[in-house]
Amino acid sequence: MKRTSFSDDSCPIARTLDVMGEWWTLLILRDVFYGIHRFDRLLTELGISRNVLTDRLRTLVESGILEKKIYLEKPERYEYHLTESGCELLPILALLMNWGNRWLPTEFGEKPELVHDSCGQTAVPLLVCNHCHKEITPHNAHLHKLEN
Amino acid sequence: MKRTSFSDDSCPIARTLDVMGEWWTLLILRDVFYGIHRFDRLLTELGISRNVLTDRLRTLVESGILEKKIYLEKPERYEYHLTESGCELLPILALLMNWGNRWLPTEFGEKPELVHDSCGQTAVPLLVCNHCHKEITPHNAHLHKLEN
Repeated sequence: MKRTSFSDDSCPIARTLDVMGEWWTLLILRDVFYGIHRFDRLLTELGISRNVLTDRLRTLVESGILEKKIYLEKPERYEYHLTESGCELLPILALLMNWGNRWLPTEFGEKPELVHDSCGQTAVPLLVCNHCHKEITPHNAHLHKLEN
Repeated sequence: MKRTSFSDDSCPIARTLDVMGEWWTLLILRDVFYGIHRFDRLLTELGISRNVLTDRLRTLVESGILEKKIYLEKPERYEYHLTESGCELLPILALLMNWGNRWLPTEFGEKPELVHDSCGQTAVPLLVCNHCHKEITPHNAHLHKLEN
């Protein structure tokens, strides 16, 4: 079933979701952030069908979020790497991880983490304002819709 | 088609995506953040079918992200409001908005904004580390996967 396209939507949230396509896409990106770049390894890690993975990777490359880099000439084989726009999705994945750890805990003792390499700590990501540098919370900020 | 469930997945990103279900869900939440709380208004704003909206709202209530508040006794009518866990999704929507504004610009001149009420500015959200309070970027942080 072809879902509604939001690619021309005036809302940037809708456009972003349109590019990502569906949840599989974010899980593929998560694994690329984990350092998994090759098709067969992604296939094993994600446990999805070859067709779905092929299709999602193609979309991510076409959207400029991933780029293919050749690593074997014969037969031709590619790795998938994050572009600049892809890299900038890290904060979104970090917040999804944080929300899940907080609100959907499981019996799994150890949790995946966000490591802030520049200070060496396991970080809980905080959102701050670029003007006052104070924290942005649901209680001191709001989304403002502009009418078209 | 029933998609794979990630509700018991060890990855909090997968569990979060499982609760959200699909993109419609995030667009419903966006509109609730905009201050739209009633079924008929959500229906008009989103342009989705009554059945889909009913289904997604039920899931969001069952997941504890939205709660129903009665606003009319006869006939019984409810508004949908964000719970604490729902409110804490604001940073994720703010980052999706920001990424879309940056990487998927459109000809629409005015953009929806994140307003930081406590300082009164339109904010570009930045992610910082809770330890050193310096910015978390894709170049100075990484997601660390823990093996189960």
